[in-house]
Amino acid sequence: MAAAKAENLTLVVHGPGDLRLENYPIPEPGPNEVLLKMHSVGICGSDVHYWQHGRIGDFIVKKPMVLGHEASGTVVKVGSLVKHLKSGDRVAIEPGALREMDEFCKIGRYNLSPSIFFCATPPDDGNLCQFYKHNADFCYKLPDNVTYEEGALIEPLSVGIHACRRAGITLGNKVLVCGAGPIGLVTLIVAKAMGAGQVLVTDLSASRLSKAKEVGADIVLQISKESPKEIASKVEDMLGCKPEATIECTGVESAIQSGIYATRAGGTLVLVGLGSEMTTVPLTHASTREVDIKGVFRYCNTWPMAISMLASKAVNVKPLVTHRFPLEKALEAFETARKGTGLKVMLKCDPNDQNP
Amino acid sequence: MAAAKAENLTLVVHGPGDLRLENYPIPEPGPNEVLLKMHSVGICGSDVHYWQHGRIGDFIVKKPMVLGHEASGTVVKVGSLVKHLKSGDRVAIEPGALREMDEFCKIGRYNLSPSIFFCATPPDDGNLCQFYKHNADFCYKLPDNVTYEEGALIEPLSVGIHACRRAGITLGNKVLVCGAGPIGLVTLIVAKAMGAGQVLVTDLSASRLSKAKEVGADIVLQISKESPKEIASKVEDMLGCKPEATIECTGVESAIQSGIYATRAGGTLVLVGLGSEMTTVPLTHASTREVDIKGVFRYCNTWPMAISMLASKAVNVKPLVTHRFPLEKALEAFETARKGTGLKVMLKCDPNDQNP
Amino acid sequence: MAAAKAENLTLVVHGPGDLRLENYPIPEPGPNEVLLKMHSVGICGSDVHYWQHGRIGDFIVKKPMVLGHEASGTVVKVGSLVKHLKSGDRVAIEPGALREMDEFCKIGRYNLSPSIFFCATPPDDGNLCQFYKHNADFCYKLPDNVTYEEGALIEPLSVGIHACRRAGITLGNKVLVCGAGPIGLVTLIVAKAMGAGQVLVTDLSASRLSKAKEVGADIVLQISKESPKEIASKVEDMLGCKPEATIECTGVESAIQSGIYATRAGGTLVLVGLGSEMTTVPLTHASTREVDIKGVFRYCNTWPMAISMLASKAVNVKPLVTHRFPLEKALEAFETARKGTGLKVMLKCDPNDQNP
Amino acid sequence: MAAAKAENLTLVVHGPGDLRLENYPIPEPGPNEVLLKMHSVGICGSDVHYWQHGRIGDFIVKKPMVLGHEASGTVVKVGSLVKHLKSGDRVAIEPGALREMDEFCKIGRYNLSPSIFFCATPPDDGNLCQFYKHNADFCYKLPDNVTYEEGALIEPLSVGIHACRRAGITLGNKVLVCGAGPIGLVTLIVAKAMGAGQVLVTDLSASRLSKAKEVGADIVLQISKESPKEIASKVEDMLGCKPEATIECTGVESAIQSGIYATRAGGTLVLVGLGSEMTTVPLTHASTREVDIKGVFRYCNTWPMAISMLASKAVNVKPLVTHRFPLEKALEAFETARKGTGLKVMLKCDPNDQNP
Repeated sequence: MAAAKAENLTLVVHGPGDLRLENYPIPEPGPNEVLLKMHSVGICGSDVHYWQHGRIGDFIVKKPMVLGHEASGTVVKVGSLVKHLKSGDRVAIEPGALREMDEFCKIGRYNLSPSIFFCATPPDDGNLCQFYKHNADFCYKLPDNVTYEEGALIEPLSVGIHACRRAGITLGNKVLVCGAGPIGLVTLIVAKAMGAGQVLVTDLSASRLSKAKEVGADIVLQISKESPKEIASKVEDMLGCKPEATIECTGVESAIQSGIYATRAGGTLVLVGLGSEMTTVPLTHASTREVDIKGVFRYCNTWPMAISMLASKAVNVKPLVTHRFPLEKALEAFETARKGTGLKVMLKCDPNDQNP
Repeated sequence: MAAAKAENLTLVVHGPGDLRLENYPIPEPGPNEVLLKMHSVGICGSDVHYWQHGRIGDFIVKKPMVLGHEASGTVVKVGSLVKHLKSGDRVAIEPGALREMDEFCKIGRYNLSPSIFFCATPPDDGNLCQFYKHNADFCYKLPDNVTYEEGALIEPLSVGIHACRRAGITLGNKVLVCGAGPIGLVTLIVAKAMGAGQVLVTDLSASRLSKAKEVGADIVLQISKESPKEIASKVEDMLGCKPEATIECTGVESAIQSGIYATRAGGTLVLVGLGSEMTTVPLTHASTREVDIKGVFRYCNTWPMAISMLASKAVNVKPLVTHRFPLEKALEAFETARKGTGLKVMLKCDPNDQNP
Repeated sequence: MAAAKAENLTLVVHGPGDLRLENYPIPEPGPNEVLLKMHSVGICGSDVHYWQHGRIGDFIVKKPMVLGHEASGTVVKVGSLVKHLKSGDRVAIEPGALREMDEFCKIGRYNLSPSIFFCATPPDDGNLCQFYKHNADFCYKLPDNVTYEEGALIEPLSVGIHACRRAGITLGNKVLVCGAGPIGLVTLIVAKAMGAGQVLVTDLSASRLSKAKEVGADIVLQISKESPKEIASKVEDMLGCKPEATIECTGVESAIQSGIYATRAGGTLVLVGLGSEMTTVPLTHASTREVDIKGVFRYCNTWPMAISMLASKAVNVKPLVTHRFPLEKALEAFETARKGTGLKVMLKCDPNDQNP
Repeated sequence: MAAAKAENLTLVVHGPGDLRLENYPIPEPGPNEVLLKMHSVGICGSDVHYWQHGRIGDFIVKKPMVLGHEASGTVVKVGSLVKHLKSGDRVAIEPGALREMDEFCKIGRYNLSPSIFFCATPPDDGNLCQFYKHNADFCYKLPDNVTYEEGALIEPLSVGIHACRRAGITLGNKVLVCGAGPIGLVTLIVAKAMGAGQVLVTDLSASRLSKAKEVGADIVLQISKESPKEIASKVEDMLGCKPEATIECTGVESAIQSGIYATRAGGTLVLVGLGSEMTTVPLTHASTREVDIKGVFRYCNTWPMAISMLASKAVNVKPLVTHRFPLEKALEAFETARKGTGLKVMLKCDPNDQNP
């Protein structure tokens, strides 16, 4: 199937703590696939988690798995049935690619398809490598004025888009975002782009909140030891009213509780952060005020709108990238990501082009 | 303001366990009100609860309060500004009546208005009496082919309508209804009327489930000691798939948990039953499958559609009434309701017309 | 590819007025397809139109085309990748089958995909034959208590479902359906199943209106020479108010005009019937009352809910079938359909089983 | 009721071409009203139309009517039942104020209420005067960082908000706006604020398009003699695809036709501009591609979100004001508005404060 002594440097996790750069064969695209020369791949918290723990919940690394799912590259080979892409096209990769047209696909919520392929979720390989093949229907051409790194950042941006869309953010909304990590920040960026009037971001860390201010937070609130009800009360005071939507990006039980207390009657609490299996929450408080509680599972139908926004400069995600490493230094890059000193660590897979 | 030696027999709760039939003055309607000669008033679980405990949550009976909020009657006097009603009109009463045009009213979710008047919720008086005045905008004319008792039953029916609407029930849906009390049954009836394919009702009681079958349940499941996951698994087996919507009418923590496990990815769990302040639930299981959790607070915009349904015989709520008492025997009626042997106990307030 | 002297009697249109029964080879299913032994296929107005005129709008019969798209049959061979069906399964066929996962598919509106395959729409062959292969993702297993003919009738029923869904029909709605042909009748049936309070059906023909009464119309109105505004006024008088939704199934300009005048402010007019290219309508009257005008193009996501409704006996489409012919007598059947004396003419493709 | 020799300079239209500055008594607010000292009132095309023609459609000036409905001022007296406002509050005025709680109000679409009061629509007086009383529920407090003129501009901005909301504009959308007059421009501004990727504006006038570029249009297209299909084709070429939404602000038949041809399948055409009673359109082209056609009638629920957007500087409407006149020079101001040389002409009603 693949070339004998191919040059395809690839980052593979073999189990907890066991991360290796290996040489993989260059894959051959199937009829509906394209082969991509990878350019930029961001490191996600889940990549670090698989490396550190060998699992996330029920997803267990049982055989060596390639990491990486925030990615962009260039088409170098096109499957026989592919019509909308050609060699040389610069593309962003949606890591979830449907394997069958099931009920979820048919109603437009394909992220819920149980048989979906998803990069770097066991047992599916990711794209932290030099050459990678992917379902062409989930590769999206980038306009000239969108960089590869912006293309790679569409993946985290999609989480923010899906969360804000599920929250029903609209013009002039007051929004509470809990957590100022990468996901909190993209959520903030998207909420502002959808016309939110004021976005208040909470976090434990002053430096993270300072970054939130930098990328557009109207108000920030540093949490220390307040109770959930106290936080809700502070949020209401600072915004002048309760927010119509709260987007919880930490997964911490007390933050979820704060989110319920804080949200306006008739509003929505979106859960992005994942916590423990069982959670204790003031459910009656939510339900008698008709505060809807909605989770998000990845995203769907976000790449085209994200590309449109990036092309029109309606959002700016460039400040999210704080570190860059060539693919050869992937282990060092992962160490940097693990320490959490920056925001987004970007791996550059093309030795001949390390530009953004 | 009111007549001196009026005849207006009225049922008043003075505190926990202290329920009295008293003679109140006949009230005078304001410019936007109508005076009603009451005909049929159903006893709700909340009426019994105020009588037994003098409170529900933060709503405390601090001064004598008239009970009753499931009601219908006849217009006998019309305020000066009322245009759509005239003396002699038979009407059903929506117990929640707006006091101000606030933000919730303006967006069509007036049930969330914090200043709303609501019959038999402290400190607002209900309508278990012979003569009662109400905001005319919340009195709805009954067609000739809808009885007073059907008119009174629009109130519990409205809970079912609002719950099913929030659940997004549509054609062919599989629906799980937890609990076969009065609210579970009206929810079942409405779900079928909205085109649900199969409705499965659960309860601890075989006799309640038998009533559920009688009013239209496709499948019933008697719960005994199964775990929430076991119940979810049984539901899936019996329906042939997970339900798109679950409507929880018990408020019991384990039933809420069952509801989360049972609901299909992308579906909705509606919480109608109220439980304790804090609830422990598998929130991650809901959110990663995008099962939305929505509460209901009373209802809004249900009377016109309920009247339309009753007039066209699309729903039949008559089997819900199991007992009738004249207003004079209200204490006996409440005792019957407290024992829970029947479903809906109806009080007949007009000594000259005790018909349904 | 196919057997040499296969037995596959097939109905083929060669051009205007030129309809022939021919012997086609039995096709071989591809990896994602199933081969079906056809059982029941209804004749649609479009089949008759292709026979009579050789075209519908821009869809022109340029080469011989098999007719038929309201169909059900039995799986006799299964492609290598098909998992959810097996030989012997009785299935209903959704005639539109996606060829690519484009933007419309991804958002759940796959009926709008410009490259979709559609039975008996040039140049795609239909299934009025004995053996037919189809994309397995668009074949739906029928429960034992749903007949083949009900399975075939899911196609016209789907038009009604999609129209009512686009109209937003809900509990207690007053609905106006213009036209009492097969599509008007399925729309009426679906509207009632979705909980409509009163459905008023209009037509020029008394006998069609009599059929409408039989399948559930609450009110019928025979149109003769009234102006659109007069019809709207009559509709309002008969319903007691303007309908929230109007579903126009004739395509006649004056009926579309009536629909705009008749619909309540804030309501919806759905256009199912197709008329001429340009239409003159009181658009200002619609737009200043926020009456939305929505068309329908075929349907999507209707088979599963239709099967669920048929299985639960929530709808009864059996009265729609007025004639049956064996496939051998297809020309006679088409002549009957052309005369319009009945409603649905059903062709029976299996010589060994001519039951419903 | 009112003071004898009050000072309340007021602009009154008496019939076609008959516009007069008169001295009216200062009105006394009712229990649910506030008396306002007017500050800034914009001149709308409808004001000019009533002056020139004495009518708009069925709305006829039969008795002297005060003009003006784009307004802001300061509370100087408060009715006995008003709680949320106090003397000295700076407010923006929503000119439509409900007179009764009818079905449209209850569902949150109060703009459709047939009995609504509306400033400067016969027979209701407007607020081009020095002292004006208004329903307090439709007066909204302005934050300190929003000027009176911005407050007055909320009225035209609301038209844009309602249109964009009905169009379902969301992140990254391509949007076509037909017409670059004041309404086209506010629509453009709102579409961008809601996250539209690219907005293309068309007009006959190069200078209007130049203003459109100035306030945010991504692309402009000057129309001359192209056919509707040619315009649609140009729009598709310039945007790289058909727009998901088209907002038609001219009312011209050929522009509505262009809008239908131009809009993407599954998209929405919103009609803001009003044309003649009957319109000839390619309705089949819209309906077979499921392009929804929606009108707008004024707006509802827009003031709070507009204030939130203005306060957060998410939109900038200040460039819309091109002329200012003191109320004393109202006739000159109307002459300027009639000539159409500028965009928004603002009248300053407070002799002691002529600031923006």
